[in-house]
Amino acid sequence: FLCWQSEIVAEYKRVDQFIMHCFMPSVQNIDQIASAAKMDMMAVNIYHGQQDDLTGNEIAFAGDYFRSVKGNNYLVTETNAQTIGWTSKTQQPPYPGQMRQNVYAHIGSGANMVEYWHWHSIHYGQEIYWKGVLSHALQADRAYAEVSETAHELQKFGTKLVNLRKENEVAILFSHDSHDALNFMPFNGSGPDWSESTNNAYRNQLVAQFHKVLYQHNIGVDFIFPQNLDLAKYKLVIIPSLYVASDHLLEQINEYIRNGGHVIMQFKSGFSDENSMVRPVIAPGPLREACGFYYQEFSNIKTLPLKDNPFEVEENSATDWMEYIIPETAEVLAYYDHPYFSAYPAVTINEYGKGTLLYEGSIFSDQIQTKIIQEAIIRAGIENPDHQFAWPLIAKSGINEEKNAVHFYYNYSSAAIEFVYPHSAGEELVTEESIEKGALLSVAPWDVLIVEENGTR
Amino acid sequence: FLCWQSEIVAEYKRVDQFIMHCFMPSVQNIDQIASAAKMDMMAVNIYHGQQDDLTGNEIAFAGDYFRSVKGNNYLVTETNAQTIGWTSKTQQPPYPGQMRQNVYAHIGSGANMVEYWHWHSIHYGQEIYWKGVLSHALQADRAYAEVSETAHELQKFGTKLVNLRKENEVAILFSHDSHDALNFMPFNGSGPDWSESTNNAYRNQLVAQFHKVLYQHNIGVDFIFPQNLDLAKYKLVIIPSLYVASDHLLEQINEYIRNGGHVIMQFKSGFSDENSMVRPVIAPGPLREACGFYYQEFSNIKTLPLKDNPFEVEENSATDWMEYIIPETAEVLAYYDHPYFSAYPAVTINEYGKGTLLYEGSIFSDQIQTKIIQEAIIRAGIENPDHQFAWPLIAKSGINEEKNAVHFYYNYSSAAIEFVYPHSAGEELVTEESIEKGALLSVAPWDVLIVEENGTR
Amino acid sequence: FLCWQSEIVAEYKRVDQFIMHCFMPSVQNIDQIASAAKMDMMAVNIYHGQQDDLTGNEIAFAGDYFRSVKGNNYLVTETNAQTIGWTSKTQQPPYPGQMRQNVYAHIGSGANMVEYWHWHSIHYGQEIYWKGVLSHALQADRAYAEVSETAHELQKFGTKLVNLRKENEVAILFSHDSHDALNFMPFNGSGPDWSESTNNAYRNQLVAQFHKVLYQHNIGVDFIFPQNLDLAKYKLVIIPSLYVASDHLLEQINEYIRNGGHVIMQFKSGFSDENSMVRPVIAPGPLREACGFYYQEFSNIKTLPLKDNPFEVEENSATDWMEYIIPETAEVLAYYDHPYFSAYPAVTINEYGKGTLLYEGSIFSDQIQTKIIQEAIIRAGIENPDHQFAWPLIAKSGINEEKNAVHFYYNYSSAAIEFVYPHSAGEELVTEESIEKGALLSVAPWDVLIVEENGTR
Repeated sequence: FLCWQSEIVAEYKRVDQFIMHCFMPSVQNIDQIASAAKMDMMAVNIYHGQQDDLTGNEIAFAGDYFRSVKGNNYLVTETNAQTIGWTSKTQQPPYPGQMRQNVYAHIGSGANMVEYWHWHSIHYGQEIYWKGVLSHALQADRAYAEVSETAHELQKFGTKLVNLRKENEVAILFSHDSHDALNFMPFNGSGPDWSESTNNAYRNQLVAQFHKVLYQHNIGVDFIFPQNLDLAKYKLVIIPSLYVASDHLLEQINEYIRNGGHVIMQFKSGFSDENSMVRPVIAPGPLREACGFYYQEFSNIKTLPLKDNPFEVEENSATDWMEYIIPETAEVLAYYDHPYFSAYPAVTINEYGKGTLLYEGSIFSDQIQTKIIQEAIIRAGIENPDHQFAWPLIAKSGINEEKNAVHFYYNYSSAAIEFVYPHSAGEELVTEESIEKGALLSVAPWDVLIVEENGTR
Repeated sequence: FLCWQSEIVAEYKRVDQFIMHCFMPSVQNIDQIASAAKMDMMAVNIYHGQQDDLTGNEIAFAGDYFRSVKGNNYLVTETNAQTIGWTSKTQQPPYPGQMRQNVYAHIGSGANMVEYWHWHSIHYGQEIYWKGVLSHALQADRAYAEVSETAHELQKFGTKLVNLRKENEVAILFSHDSHDALNFMPFNGSGPDWSESTNNAYRNQLVAQFHKVLYQHNIGVDFIFPQNLDLAKYKLVIIPSLYVASDHLLEQINEYIRNGGHVIMQFKSGFSDENSMVRPVIAPGPLREACGFYYQEFSNIKTLPLKDNPFEVEENSATDWMEYIIPETAEVLAYYDHPYFSAYPAVTINEYGKGTLLYEGSIFSDQIQTKIIQEAIIRAGIENPDHQFAWPLIAKSGINEEKNAVHFYYNYSSAAIEFVYPHSAGEELVTEESIEKGALLSVAPWDVLIVEENGTR
Repeated sequence: FLCWQSEIVAEYKRVDQFIMHCFMPSVQNIDQIASAAKMDMMAVNIYHGQQDDLTGNEIAFAGDYFRSVKGNNYLVTETNAQTIGWTSKTQQPPYPGQMRQNVYAHIGSGANMVEYWHWHSIHYGQEIYWKGVLSHALQADRAYAEVSETAHELQKFGTKLVNLRKENEVAILFSHDSHDALNFMPFNGSGPDWSESTNNAYRNQLVAQFHKVLYQHNIGVDFIFPQNLDLAKYKLVIIPSLYVASDHLLEQINEYIRNGGHVIMQFKSGFSDENSMVRPVIAPGPLREACGFYYQEFSNIKTLPLKDNPFEVEENSATDWMEYIIPETAEVLAYYDHPYFSAYPAVTINEYGKGTLLYEGSIFSDQIQTKIIQEAIIRAGIENPDHQFAWPLIAKSGINEEKNAVHFYYNYSSAAIEFVYPHSAGEELVTEESIEKGALLSVAPWDVLIVEENGTR
């Protein structure tokens, strides 16, 4: 439908006009690549919590995803102005600074535009409390003042931020087919066993956890898709439960590793073919050699600790799923702590060709995932000084049209944060102050610093 | 429909017969004034918890409400006999004394009759466990004995209690339109944000809380309605969130205050016009001068304390809603305790003309409401010695046909309660004992004392 | 329908073939006696939890029930192989030993066959994760090895276990009509009061509790049914809430007690006639003389203790229901601990003719039920040395075709259990070791010992 509509618009539009569609961050509900095939740009509406619920997470996820669909900058066609909600029970007017910070969060992820749905709040109907930049009184207010301040800043230095080029060495492989099949045969969830569930665990739990851990530790990431797989571009590829995959797709992954790629792969990968039919061979089928193990059995579990806390974390937990993995060439990194399941590895790593495949047989805590990813970053040789910081201090970077690196530092908290600036000297764009490498900087609550490097000018 | 039916009945009934309808205490579901326009009397069925769940609250609420619709006595056409429930899982046969106490609770609120639905419990169908005065065995039993005792008492002195005239100086303004609009755009509740909710918060949380606090502190109260507003009759008017109101209605309130009336008003009042359209002016629109403040923003909140516990209560809490109030002439009585919301008042009071308007920007604990109401009672100069007592010792009063004041004292607990009788000397009607002013009286568990004053005979 | 189908099959089948149907353990959903009238054998599919959720309870319940329908051995036409579930979120592959133990659990209850639904796990559709003996790889695996081991054992000594004759002296009276009527007018449950509930409390709470307590204390039990009531065969009859019963059925019970039978009877028994009409007489109607008390009232309750802990248990609790029992000839064994309900007995016992009727006016904890049943066993004079053991050490017995007693001892835990063998000397069939009376035996985790007595050969 969207392709058909795009073709019709293409017949009538002027040459200086372009075609886009306001997509949703519920990315599981539509095939963005097919739908946007005849569009010129990606666009997305991003709504999220405000006040103490503002994390920047939804902004980064949607930005990384839609930037990746066409490998280019994108537009934010709707986002939170004052408040959202189809009733008046979820009103969260942003704390001072949050509206401005959100604009720069979108830009730091590669957005070329930030647009609000309503100019003014409306007075009747379903969206009375989905407020605009102006309140119902139609007069300048607190929100208007902050939007105006931000717009005047962009008027001054916006050309240094537009068309920001993001260059990431880590990618997450997103499989719509695996999402759908895991909704049909979910491995967790509270609904009854016999109901067709749409718990969206693939999108909202597996993929979301990997992205959140990367985001919170300032590791830039793209998404990649089975339809147009460019594995070679990345040093580290994270593969959430790839439950549905053709032999061809699995062979592409095998080849990537043999050629020196590093992979983090999650349970159930390779279990079913492209038609969601379970492969009638010993699991994980075509991935067996790359994984360095096999299994025929699996069990749901309640939350279990890993034996001897191998990742040295507070939240030493696996949950929901485990596989009866029998290693062949793989090295075991962690076992379950359980009277019977302790015979089976929870985490393995296998050297395969010039690369490695790390396998996660269960769902792990954020802290374990953080450790696993940090070690993979070192293995892949892609350390970056911003990795030392962690949420609520968020760092984003890109290359602007003047070919200068631009570094954003966001404070997602109500207390000021100090940090040592680790990149080459530059200028903070808002204050126009010079910043030296190693300078001690402070970001005010819900504020942002934007440093453009001098060096490459 | 009810008016049409009333007209038909009126054509056929004898002159000694009268027209009434068995209304429900779910008062939000129907416009009682319009429905009862052609009826002679109000009647209502009142069902409530028994055993430890018997508080007298539902009896008082329904009595106060239906007495107010026509400003006259009313009939109880159904109420709990032995047990209620459409299954056998909510059976609560009353403790000894409760059935008798309930009869006098209705009478003390102005009822002229108490009638039960079933004479005997039925043996099949949906209402097997909605038991009557007799159990299924159709024989005299514990319940029958208590009903019989009560009826014989009324045979003796019922003429002293019928047509009891209630004279109250406090009123609650009940707005069906605000109830409906707040169900459409609720400000709290656990359902999803996008669902049309019918959480009935206006009726069951806001109005119910004000009434409960008044009831539990023995402050007699009437209800008043926008259709036939007689504000001048009252010294203190409580206005739960008057979300929907015409300019005319708001001006009536303003005028009442200017003329010396005292008002307690809740958040969201004045926000929308009579068509539930948000007023396109700075809130609270036509009430701004009487309130002495304005606001353009508001936020949902979780439970927050008030700063420095200004009402000196244990349950120092505000919940669900707050407004970004900016005082003009109003005095601030309480602020929120919060990093950002502390800038805005939670409670204000404004002198306007000869009266006052106290404004509540949030939902407060029962204890805070009690303090606010008790202070307003003093401000309005309408103290009464029964205000010193509190639930489970409940006091009600009225003037009987002999123009004598009658005082009821109910014990809603399983332990005896002593108190000093604070009114003029009289006679306790059941025991026929003389009672002097200042006498120390004791009410047995689930019992009642009824004192008719001598003085005015 | 099943009778009609049975007749059609009977016309065509060979004389060496037989008619059966795969019934379900949701025994409340169908009248097994009427449905199986034209069948040759009873058969049932039994699914249950595995791993730490394996208790043997469902196996014993379904076995006891379906063995009782025709008073004969039965077939297990489906049961857990590797895992069950219509999604992959309830996978519980059995711990080592559990598949084998389950086979002997069925046989010990009187099963003549154990059959699995799937030979191999299937690769698409709803039952992908309802796994068979083989995993999806179609290769011999852990489950296959255990099934094969068990089958070879049965090849060796199965003829000693087939057609096992079970002789029990305790019976539970199961009333489909009472189940249905209590679903229509439930006495407990969390649903709203006005909804037709199907909480299945009769089957899943009342009957299930009595059976579980008997099972866990190794007291063999049959089921009996109103349609073909053979009370005289038993020394102790347990009657869960017999809410619906004809006068004739109640008179059979009265006569059984007069003749020396012992009964444990639960609340609401005798309340309604065979049409679910409440009897218009003082409760419990025709049972009044046998019970030795009467009542006209009843109340739901939250959890209450019994006064002075008369059964000396940790979980001293009654819940959901109580009756205002007024003893006539009955002796009171327990009262409620409550300001008002303490006037009424919770448990009574009445000598009636040569027998006794113990009455339970409420739902009691498992521990209280255990005490009540153990005392009734002594009263009925039917002690057995296996009663000294309790779950997780489960004992079952029967007489084989060689007229030898066979004793099974199951360990439902992950730790070995020792016990002193209390029966006549015999041979353990798996190890072929001789076992003397008084020998100290050890059962490994999830294992079973099977001793065939020598004496009677």
